[in-house]
Amino acid sequence: MIDKALPPGSKIGIFGGGQLGRMMAIAAARLGFHVNVFSPQHVSPAFEVAHERTIAPYGDLAAVQAFAQSVDVVTVEFENIPLDTYEHAAKFTAIAPEPTALAIAQDRLAEKNFLTSHNIPVAPFVEINREADIVSAVYKLGPEGILKTRRMGYDGKGQIRLGGRVDPDAAIQAYRGEPAIFEQIVPFKLEISCLAARNYDGAIVFYDCPKNEHRNQILAESHVPANVPADLEKLAQAYTAKIAEKLQYVGVITVEFFALGQGTETPLIVNEIAPRVHNSGHWTIDACAFDQFENHIRAITGWSLGSGQRHSNAMMVNIVGEDMDRWREFATSEGAILHVYGKDETRAGRKMGHVTYLYEKS
Amino acid sequence: MIDKALPPGSKIGIFGGGQLGRMMAIAAARLGFHVNVFSPQHVSPAFEVAHERTIAPYGDLAAVQAFAQSVDVVTVEFENIPLDTYEHAAKFTAIAPEPTALAIAQDRLAEKNFLTSHNIPVAPFVEINREADIVSAVYKLGPEGILKTRRMGYDGKGQIRLGGRVDPDAAIQAYRGEPAIFEQIVPFKLEISCLAARNYDGAIVFYDCPKNEHRNQILAESHVPANVPADLEKLAQAYTAKIAEKLQYVGVITVEFFALGQGTETPLIVNEIAPRVHNSGHWTIDACAFDQFENHIRAITGWSLGSGQRHSNAMMVNIVGEDMDRWREFATSEGAILHVYGKDETRAGRKMGHVTYLYEKS
Repeated sequence: MIDKALPPGSKIGIFGGGQLGRMMAIAAARLGFHVNVFSPQHVSPAFEVAHERTIAPYGDLAAVQAFAQSVDVVTVEFENIPLDTYEHAAKFTAIAPEPTALAIAQDRLAEKNFLTSHNIPVAPFVEINREADIVSAVYKLGPEGILKTRRMGYDGKGQIRLGGRVDPDAAIQAYRGEPAIFEQIVPFKLEISCLAARNYDGAIVFYDCPKNEHRNQILAESHVPANVPADLEKLAQAYTAKIAEKLQYVGVITVEFFALGQGTETPLIVNEIAPRVHNSGHWTIDACAFDQFENHIRAITGWSLGSGQRHSNAMMVNIVGEDMDRWREFATSEGAILHVYGKDETRAGRKMGHVTYLYEKS
Repeated sequence: MIDKALPPGSKIGIFGGGQLGRMMAIAAARLGFHVNVFSPQHVSPAFEVAHERTIAPYGDLAAVQAFAQSVDVVTVEFENIPLDTYEHAAKFTAIAPEPTALAIAQDRLAEKNFLTSHNIPVAPFVEINREADIVSAVYKLGPEGILKTRRMGYDGKGQIRLGGRVDPDAAIQAYRGEPAIFEQIVPFKLEISCLAARNYDGAIVFYDCPKNEHRNQILAESHVPANVPADLEKLAQAYTAKIAEKLQYVGVITVEFFALGQGTETPLIVNEIAPRVHNSGHWTIDACAFDQFENHIRAITGWSLGSGQRHSNAMMVNIVGEDMDRWREFATSEGAILHVYGKDETRAGRKMGHVTYLYEKS
């Protein structure tokens, strides 16, 4: 918790050295803050644009202490930071968001329980702790489902899709004994996400919800406007506001939704909460006066939030893995606003950059 | 000279560690380039967001060599770099722009002669090498003039305004024996600047000309659109294109113009050439898909240029000296897009940051 707005020249610590930390560091620098990035990797995209670099494993609590003591507020670029690490930092400086939000996002079961306890709809699910639970889950929810580990899942990692064509034995074989959930596959029309920034005063600012398209379980494209009915977007924002308030959240939070189509009992269900800036909000860099990264920084430093309004329509296309070899095409394509994350190595499924295209606002 | 477009991951060296270098470094990072900033000052705004830092005096040619050898192309953020330094770097790597442009911009007399040799109008002037020249200058051009040192002038530095109320002896006394020019004060309606990016292929992209207002000889505000007749802007662009072509210029170049009003023989005269990105173009960061810094980087790395189109009208207000104490006001003012340069110390007349306001495009 920050008592009053941090002046430019204050120091911000970011746990995580990926592209989200990188874009956050740029936003922080633009406001005159000094940034210290904490990452275990010697080559980290965020180091490139950070004033200071802390290279240490997350388990190195002495390094965590020194890092926390060197800054005025600490935040995270990813939700899977060990909670011990984050809570250790909190002993020495302010942190935002609070660890609760991360704890919930780190555990699919806790997340589902949090949401249902606040009457926010999710896909039907069953908790899986042993093989036998899978059998009863299939009995209860039908065979079309996804087995998801409770922890460390992102970009489709730790997920196994089970279906009619899958032998029940295969399902059991796929289960590796980790705590998991079995989630019913709900046929949905489209996916939108809601990005909001909330500050210490409880003020909240929304961006227009992008419509998201995935390929190989990785976000491929985001479009604004999503061209969904206005009341659907309002509903997504209402759910997001409720989540942010219940968590006393400070910073940017993202909620992924499945839209089930008109006339359904629950037009929207939450797929996932991301307690952080989000890939589906990268278009805000180019289409808004105040992008998601800046509003995250403004929120955690106790500033008032910038408007979430956009001046343009936008399409964001991720550059994944070998797509990066096409850089020359992006570099010469008219209107392609290129963002490259400076990763040391191109790997299949790795997010290497993105391209934004702007269109006149509709 | 670059043979072909440099891929992301290539290295760019920037001479100068001020705010222009800082914003250039951010633009370069966004495109996936690694940046090495060369500055004699241990605390330099551009270091904050640069991958590598070279701290050395410009006269340290060994450091210049190592710096140049560490990168694929070298550029400058300011025109007053010692030419020897810049030319030394050119022995070890590509540089852009060419030193000629800097040589001309470093010497007001060379600049005036260059412009007049290409039939581009400037204010009447006389070369001053000794006291007696002042007397004959006043005789030729009248007493209303500005005595300007030929070298190292910016933000009004090295300028003395002489006028009717000034004793001719005072004028002579003000002259410190340095090579100078005496320039007639031409009554002008307003000042605009023209920012253009030109690449190795000779392709050129213009931004809309901002209208600029100064206070205490320092840029205070820039406005786009300038609301000047379209043919005046076209003329400014034509002059700028001619200057860029004659210099075989690569990168962003800025030409400051005085508009003398309708019906005058020469509706525009050139005040100054800045062979670099420019304060009056800072609004492009927020109002254009491709800002001046990105187009400078695209130009010098052999990429195609991004469009100079803007999606919004804009007003840019500089934060000078103690204005910075009002950061809280900027931080809470609706629509104020704040850019803080991270300077170590607030000093009178020092550019500390700027604020952009966007408006719907007219």
